[in-house]
Amino acid sequence: MPKVVILRYGHRTIRDKRVSTHTALVARAFGADGLYFDTIDKELKTNIERVVERFGGPFFVKMGDSWNDMIERWRSEGGEIIHLTMYGLPLPEVIEEIKQSSKKKLVVVGSEKVPGKIYQISDYNVAVTNQPHSEIAALCIFLDRIFDGRAVEGSIQFKGAKLKIIPSARGKHVKECSI
Amino acid sequence: MPKVVILRYGHRTIRDKRVSTHTALVARAFGADGLYFDTIDKELKTNIERVVERFGGPFFVKMGDSWNDMIERWRSEGGEIIHLTMYGLPLPEVIEEIKQSSKKKLVVVGSEKVPGKIYQISDYNVAVTNQPHSEIAALCIFLDRIFDGRAVEGSIQFKGAKLKIIPSARGKHVKECSI
Repeated sequence: MPKVVILRYGHRTIRDKRVSTHTALVARAFGADGLYFDTIDKELKTNIERVVERFGGPFFVKMGDSWNDMIERWRSEGGEIIHLTMYGLPLPEVIEEIKQSSKKKLVVVGSEKVPGKIYQISDYNVAVTNQPHSEIAALCIFLDRIFDGRAVEGSIQFKGAKLKIIPSARGKHVKECSI
Repeated sequence: MPKVVILRYGHRTIRDKRVSTHTALVARAFGADGLYFDTIDKELKTNIERVVERFGGPFFVKMGDSWNDMIERWRSEGGEIIHLTMYGLPLPEVIEEIKQSSKKKLVVVGSEKVPGKIYQISDYNVAVTNQPHSEIAALCIFLDRIFDGRAVEGSIQFKGAKLKIIPSARGKHVKECSI
């Protein structure tokens, strides 16, 4: 599978802190390579990198380039742009085509209202259901489908983890790993 | 499929507003019957009910009973309790057993730290990956799997919708429905 990177459009430092944190952690846990933010929030970056440090990677976070520049650069490098939006085409209609393409994928998830231009310049506007819900859930299902359920099956490897959860019927079991 | 209702544990009015809104909208969009909160947040309830009014239902929101009472009542009515937690057993290990049971299901998703008692009294502690990510994503994948992907396939019917999204390759198309 080619590289998959998320572009979180329009993160606002206070209002979106927790939803953007969830978005980033879902991106990592479900197999994306990293995440770009078009705004800067150092605390958020530190929080995500701390999870990567403890639970393993690789997973990168980059902040501050404009979304327009990032999309143009991505396209000039031969990548494609996939925008997740409830207004888009149903995921089942496009998923096979997206999976069969060998182009690296930039997956755009909005927080505040997404500019019309993103709908126009994306290769795909994709709806994970045409119902209002959550960009976190949309991203999670998109990655689940594109990676054939690997995250849920437990077959994604995270390297350099200091902590590992030991699955348990009751209670919390965490193992510290020597690296 | 028997009734599936979500119990959102420990919602805090300011801190959790957006994450709890996403949780509720995911519950609705992915086929749950309703959601209980053990705290009261009238604005949140109104926001969710407004979505149900516009995009269809049925989907209920109830607030203010203690989690303990709700769990005991649910169990006394013959239902089972499924707690989503990164520390639990991997979803693929338990999903078939959960699907085959005809008991109605109360799915507990925490926000603040969940009391140890919930781990003890749940019939299942289930992990949607043993990685840290998001209760919104965990709920979404759990409902996706339990309902065999019906939400993503577009086969869940919402009754009485005033608005319907018309899937579109570009832009936003919304249809007003006469009821």
